[in-house]
Amino acid sequence: MPVKPQILKVTCVARSRLFHVEALELRFSNGVERSYERLATRGHGAVMIVPILPNGDVVLIREYAAGLDEYTLTLPKGLIDPGENAEEAALRELQEEAGYGCRKLERLKEMTSAPNYMGHRITVLLARDLYPSRLEGDEPEPLEPMRWPLSDLETLVQREEFSEGRAIAALYMARSRLALEATATVTAD
Amino acid sequence: MPVKPQILKVTCVARSRLFHVEALELRFSNGVERSYERLATRGHGAVMIVPILPNGDVVLIREYAAGLDEYTLTLPKGLIDPGENAEEAALRELQEEAGYGCRKLERLKEMTSAPNYMGHRITVLLARDLYPSRLEGDEPEPLEPMRWPLSDLETLVQREEFSEGRAIAALYMARSRLALEATATVTAD
Repeated sequence: MPVKPQILKVTCVARSRLFHVEALELRFSNGVERSYERLATRGHGAVMIVPILPNGDVVLIREYAAGLDEYTLTLPKGLIDPGENAEEAALRELQEEAGYGCRKLERLKEMTSAPNYMGHRITVLLARDLYPSRLEGDEPEPLEPMRWPLSDLETLVQREEFSEGRAIAALYMARSRLALEATATVTAD
Repeated sequence: MPVKPQILKVTCVARSRLFHVEALELRFSNGVERSYERLATRGHGAVMIVPILPNGDVVLIREYAAGLDEYTLTLPKGLIDPGENAEEAALRELQEEAGYGCRKLERLKEMTSAPNYMGHRITVLLARDLYPSRLEGDEPEPLEPMRWPLSDLETLVQREEFSEGRAIAALYMARSRLALEATATVTAD
């Protein structure tokens, strides 16, 4: 593994209610010095949930994405609140955004979003044994849930309104995990 | 499709060399008003390249990610320069970051990163018919290329240093496309 650059200096160069930009002065192990900017990471991370119904459908939500000024199809997701672990946050967000609770949650992966300039991490969890349950969240309007057969992921990925890289990754990882389990079950029979 | 919220006001609330934070005042179609913040999108978008060698290996790169302060495994990627299209940017970045040119480039998907607060878009391209070719880029140190068999994507995804959601999505989409082509070829035989 290469030797990490030395961080010579970190300065806060811009700050808003949600964002905090840091300027970094770095010296790489070959002596080259560079200035970078990154978004400082605050909070306790985030979760993204892949809710799977008994028939193999995944529950998606349609929500307004302010960054794009468009409605998008995505997975339930949200920040981990202080004092919560990833599973507790996932169970809460699933009820707030999709109207389901679940009896089975498994972590699939801790993902990063744009690691060159953001430290944000999001844990992907597979949710099964769903049951209807609604918690009031802070959404400005109810989110519209939508079912999609995970077996037809390729068609979903072609849809323009389903564009979030992290959600695409989460669905492929979930499908891969479920296929592996199905193989193991067949072998064990 | 739901009616989009009305944007009542956009204000620049923080600005650095690279980042530009906007505050949005929104009125949703149900009358609820909310304040959001988002990173304004500048530039011409970005590309991420999946370079596939004739034996089915994908070419990854190991590079320092300032957002995480860690070396990570990822795919060649970069911003589209003014006057370039996605294919031209991909061919340039592939030579700068991985040391390959290619004779065949296909767009797989235009992805978003964190659409709730960023408008950034990145086009994923599959690169084939590779040949050794090196262009000098602006990297502070040479990037370390690494080959990985695409058939064993599941093991790669389990590695902690391979964490970028967009890169995970890109590799699964590439594998799916290649499998579809292989099926079509067998059927045509």
